Amino acid sequence: MSELQKALDYASQNRGRFLNKLIEVLKIPSISTDAQFNSEVLRAAEWMADTLKQLGIENVEAMPTEGGHPVVYGDYIKKPGAPTVLVYGHYDVQPPDPEELWETGPFEPQVRGDLLFGRGSSDMKGQALAAFHAIESLMKTGGMPVNLKFLLEGEEEIGSKHLEPFLQKHAEKFKADVSLNPDAGMMGIDMPTITYGLRGLSYFEINIWGPKADLHSGLYGGAVHNPAQVLTELVAKMHDEKGRVTLPGFYDPVRTLSPQERADFARLPNDDASYLKETGVPALWGEEGYTSAERTGARPTLEVNGLLSGWTGPGSKTVLPAKAMAKISCRLVPDQIQAMVKEQMESFMQENAPKTV
Amino acid sequence: MSELQKALDYASQNRGRFLNKLIEVLKIPSISTDAQFNSEVLRAAEWMADTLKQLGIENVEAMPTEGGHPVVYGDYIKKPGAPTVLVYGHYDVQPPDPEELWETGPFEPQVRGDLLFGRGSSDMKGQALAAFHAIESLMKTGGMPVNLKFLLEGEEEIGSKHLEPFLQKHAEKFKADVSLNPDAGMMGIDMPTITYGLRGLSYFEINIWGPKADLHSGLYGGAVHNPAQVLTELVAKMHDEKGRVTLPGFYDPVRTLSPQERADFARLPNDDASYLKETGVPALWGEEGYTSAERTGARPTLEVNGLLSGWTGPGSKTVLPAKAMAKISCRLVPDQIQAMVKEQMESFMQENAPKTV
Repeated sequence: MSELQKALDYASQNRGRFLNKLIEVLKIPSISTDAQFNSEVLRAAEWMADTLKQLGIENVEAMPTEGGHPVVYGDYIKKPGAPTVLVYGHYDVQPPDPEELWETGPFEPQVRGDLLFGRGSSDMKGQALAAFHAIESLMKTGGMPVNLKFLLEGEEEIGSKHLEPFLQKHAEKFKADVSLNPDAGMMGIDMPTITYGLRGLSYFEINIWGPKADLHSGLYGGAVHNPAQVLTELVAKMHDEKGRVTLPGFYDPVRTLSPQERADFARLPNDDASYLKETGVPALWGEEGYTSAERTGARPTLEVNGLLSGWTGPGSKTVLPAKAMAKISCRLVPDQIQAMVKEQMESFMQENAPKTV
Repeated sequence: MSELQKALDYASQNRGRFLNKLIEVLKIPSISTDAQFNSEVLRAAEWMADTLKQLGIENVEAMPTEGGHPVVYGDYIKKPGAPTVLVYGHYDVQPPDPEELWETGPFEPQVRGDLLFGRGSSDMKGQALAAFHAIESLMKTGGMPVNLKFLLEGEEEIGSKHLEPFLQKHAEKFKADVSLNPDAGMMGIDMPTITYGLRGLSYFEINIWGPKADLHSGLYGGAVHNPAQVLTELVAKMHDEKGRVTLPGFYDPVRTLSPQERADFARLPNDDASYLKETGVPALWGEEGYTSAERTGARPTLEVNGLLSGWTGPGSKTVLPAKAMAKISCRLVPDQIQAMVKEQMESFMQENAPKTV
């Protein structure tokens, strides 16, 4: 029996216990964006540290970051000369709103048939534990062929703002030959997938202030520029008619896809029919000249994540709102730098925002 | 002493009692748009009916409308041959949100210096009671020179949807020679004002549905048209670069202002400086070719009253929302018909909404 087969058998035999461990951590509402849940985020970090210790990982510690959630470190250096693999993961999750669309509680994991439902099960407590349990299975059967280091962060869902300075400070500690990030999906249940690149993120909140207080739209409408109107004009202008982002210089650093890359994209099973089926939209949309797989996999995007202004309750209110807000995020590809995109957004706003607000 | 002076003296002597009556009715949260407050709206109707009875008005009744809030009727027909004045008013108010911007509770009226603060004090429980107390002052001193009828509705703030069929049904009862509507302001504290025209209203809620559920903006952004993006594009397109509304045919029935009307508008004290001061905006905005007073007084407008989509809480969430909503209202001028504007909005949406949502 090969070493791999022994490990796979061990994993099969321990399936129930592994699943219970996952259910345990899915119950922790480690919502990193909401300060109300800070203690839960910390609890998830401690859970991760304890679990690494139980695996036999050494030097485990939850290391504080400058003003952010902690990074959990650990290592297992037993093979001099063998490569060191840095296993990356994150223990934070997105907010579960809107809660009414969950059939069962987001933090009350439930197995239904072959699937497990719970916030974080696929992004990415599930994958983190898959990696941990793969490591356990190897250790308990034939031993671990490589050295290991762990970097488990708590801010992936909010842009990992404190991670870069943290890593600069601790560069030596986290040094490795190769890094493994299980935070990506498989293209299909029978299609093991290696993702060799992931897009970055730049997140903005745009606030437009007009009059000093909400106004009556009958008394002031037509003489005062409505911040909600201005916001729609600005956000609408962030794409041109070809679906391209109009922030100045946005595409300048973006690499051209090679013929080989485009051929590989064409081999993927997520074709237009699958996008239509999964999303239920009547027609797809996107940057001209690219397939949907390329648009979502290798092209940068700009998306509206939220809009809020004025009266949004039932019925009508003829308010001319004092303020309008949009949340916008950009997915970035290699050579696009977050700081540059921030500058591009600022230039866009300076060029396009009217003097009336 | 003239009849008028006697009435004015009576009003001065009873100022405190009149103010207390107003404070009493301002405490009733008669928010017509929110069904939770239906019993309060009814209580305000009953308060109005009782008050008319106390004035000596006869045949007072709160008449039900078909599915809406009641209309309070009453009459005082004592002068055969004299004209009959129909006094119009409404006892409903707008929602007081956002409550945190009120220094004192919206339904806890407070006198500060010469001013009274409370929801409905100037729109229009205040004016309704000014009319009632003027009538009392005349009745108690020299008698009422005209016949009176009253029409006090409870749906002015939500478009008076049930009033038209109600009036068609009861046309004979409400017949009058002239109608008085005190629901308008004065141009200044020393400038008694007769308003001879008010604009109408057409209110819309626009909902854009895209995918069947909220999506991850990294996995689907760029391939699925974002409903919030589509909404901003549609709303932005409702005005052209000259500040004109682009609904097809919107201005067709609008009358041209006569030179006399434009001269009268120019005499009004609400000039650009006063708009800037009142609103605190850095610059005014509006339809090209008209003054602010004309834009707000005699030109039709389209305003965004509300926007809602996706994640609007603190922090970030990379959601591609399934739905986006805008509340939009148009102020209408003579010869613009609500039903026509509804058709114009529908045409606009059919012409401009993409097939991707």
